[in-house]
Amino acid sequence: MKVGDKHYRTIWPHQDGLSVEIIDQRWLPHDFRVVTLSTVDEIATAIADMWVRGAPLIGVTAAYGIAIAMADDPTDAHLNATCNKLHATRPTAINLKWALDEMRHTLSIVATDKRAEAAYRRAAEIADEDVELNRAIGRHGLEIIKEIAAKKKPGEPVNILTHCNAGWLATVDYGTATAPIYLAMEAGIPVHVFVDETRPRNQGAQLTAWEMDGHGVPHDLIVDNAGGHLMQHGEIDMVIVGTDRTTASGDVCNKIGTYLKALAAKDNGVPFYVALPSPTIDWTVRDGVAEIPIEERNGDEVSFVQGENSAGEIISVRISPKGTPARNPAFDVTPARLVTGLITERGIAEASAPGLARLFEKEN
Amino acid sequence: MKVGDKHYRTIWPHQDGLSVEIIDQRWLPHDFRVVTLSTVDEIATAIADMWVRGAPLIGVTAAYGIAIAMADDPTDAHLNATCNKLHATRPTAINLKWALDEMRHTLSIVATDKRAEAAYRRAAEIADEDVELNRAIGRHGLEIIKEIAAKKKPGEPVNILTHCNAGWLATVDYGTATAPIYLAMEAGIPVHVFVDETRPRNQGAQLTAWEMDGHGVPHDLIVDNAGGHLMQHGEIDMVIVGTDRTTASGDVCNKIGTYLKALAAKDNGVPFYVALPSPTIDWTVRDGVAEIPIEERNGDEVSFVQGENSAGEIISVRISPKGTPARNPAFDVTPARLVTGLITERGIAEASAPGLARLFEKEN
Repeated sequence: MKVGDKHYRTIWPHQDGLSVEIIDQRWLPHDFRVVTLSTVDEIATAIADMWVRGAPLIGVTAAYGIAIAMADDPTDAHLNATCNKLHATRPTAINLKWALDEMRHTLSIVATDKRAEAAYRRAAEIADEDVELNRAIGRHGLEIIKEIAAKKKPGEPVNILTHCNAGWLATVDYGTATAPIYLAMEAGIPVHVFVDETRPRNQGAQLTAWEMDGHGVPHDLIVDNAGGHLMQHGEIDMVIVGTDRTTASGDVCNKIGTYLKALAAKDNGVPFYVALPSPTIDWTVRDGVAEIPIEERNGDEVSFVQGENSAGEIISVRISPKGTPARNPAFDVTPARLVTGLITERGIAEASAPGLARLFEKEN
Repeated sequence: MKVGDKHYRTIWPHQDGLSVEIIDQRWLPHDFRVVTLSTVDEIATAIADMWVRGAPLIGVTAAYGIAIAMADDPTDAHLNATCNKLHATRPTAINLKWALDEMRHTLSIVATDKRAEAAYRRAAEIADEDVELNRAIGRHGLEIIKEIAAKKKPGEPVNILTHCNAGWLATVDYGTATAPIYLAMEAGIPVHVFVDETRPRNQGAQLTAWEMDGHGVPHDLIVDNAGGHLMQHGEIDMVIVGTDRTTASGDVCNKIGTYLKALAAKDNGVPFYVALPSPTIDWTVRDGVAEIPIEERNGDEVSFVQGENSAGEIISVRISPKGTPARNPAFDVTPARLVTGLITERGIAEASAPGLARLFEKEN
């Protein structure tokens, strides 16, 4: 989407035909930096240390990692070792596994001397497919926004709450949860977005707010605590969030705190939608709360906050006593009973096993 | 409570017999500073700019403000002007009004030349009464903790979640929500506290965590987003929070985000208790969500986070783009239907009009 006047994607091939360029998201919103990744180690670091994040973008980045590996050494042994290495960088991300399996499958029937070329081509296709997926999600979500807008006075915006960043920065372009918002803007429907800051890593404040600001979407940053109050007072018309992993029964594993917003939405009759490309559905899992292991990250993410000081430097400050330990679960599971609908590239599914089966019969 | 080895209150008379000393809470947890307040303007600044905070402590501080005013000019006109000035500092805090009304009532029947002495005496009594109130709350809350502990294996701690700071720093000593915890420690019952950081002002990370660390209570800091996930996985046995204002029907107005934790507690069968001294009950309000005006504070509290940098300086960092505005509602209302019980100095009341009436017949 737009960064000021120019349209960007989050990842694109370098003109050398071997490396890829990415937006290094660690410095947002304070600093807009593009970096070149030329080795598998750099790709692995970029995923593990969250230079890139978001399930779809992680998948595409890993796909380019396989391409870079194949340009170096196209043997089966190197392909397998690279898949294993990249899978270990963010084991919770289901798209990462999907993209690696897809690359392995594509290359398994290609002669070694053609593998590099085939791998770059397939990685680029996966990137383009992601953009198309997101636009399809956006078209289906747009219908929901249109219905809400039709009940408003002319010119009155549709107020949408989102949590974390399921925006274009989490994908190749458009985003999942944000695609309906960007398409609503293109359609001339007034929207206003409440952006949850999303502690501990503040992806809402750092990334989603930056997206909205860059693309000119009217928005307000709020603390994660505020959404319930705003819903009680009719200030939110709908919630749209993304998901890292959706179970076959429609439970949604997303950034920590999503569950609390779903509870508040239910309590106040606010529709709660989850936008997802179907590769994030894990057909092997039924009960999200019981079955999905939740990553516990370093407590320093809780005890320290990153931001820009008055000199324009990006630094961390400690917010708690040195003697205070921290717990840091990174995701939570929102049970399907709290989800109004799943916005997929094929349409809107009821968050249930039959609802998903109706849209994705072949896979189920 | 203890700060290392020494027992402190949050406010106490200066040895000059005129001024008062307070813990200046703006620098916690990084710096422990005691300051002397000698004028009504200093008292007003200390309340408005949150050098002291917490409904009970604000009330006691204002009472000492009246005493300082009477030492300067004991006329009715000055008494009324000072009450009005101090009431305007934090209009949402119901104890502030209560303490000012109490001082005005006490002094109305005292000759002007005796008012200063009477005012200091009454302010000190209000402080002592607060400590006694909190110990009484603690004794009733302790019974709940004992019941939960009885169902645990020997030595297994009772896990308690709290939000914001309704600790001894919000009162004169013991705190409201924390009094049961401190009394449980005195009784030898193992407890462990999950401390919500409580954005935007981080009173949990800065104050409650500092209390726990100073007094030696086992605890973990968590982001406000994490409580629901921990409840889903059985890691929280009970929630205890404070309240700035409780309606006659048992609705609870407390720091923004409290409502979300109450929803999660209900959804997971975790008991959700609110600790309060009865002066925070506003008998004139029935429907908290509809009737209580919610203070909207400056958006910079959301866009900036205060903490300690690597040089040990307390600074603010910006976490969001410069072009992003912020909304900052400071409180929310938890409907009585989500509250398991109100822990008051007279016992535990059902959160309902009849429940409160049974304990506080005379007032109702």
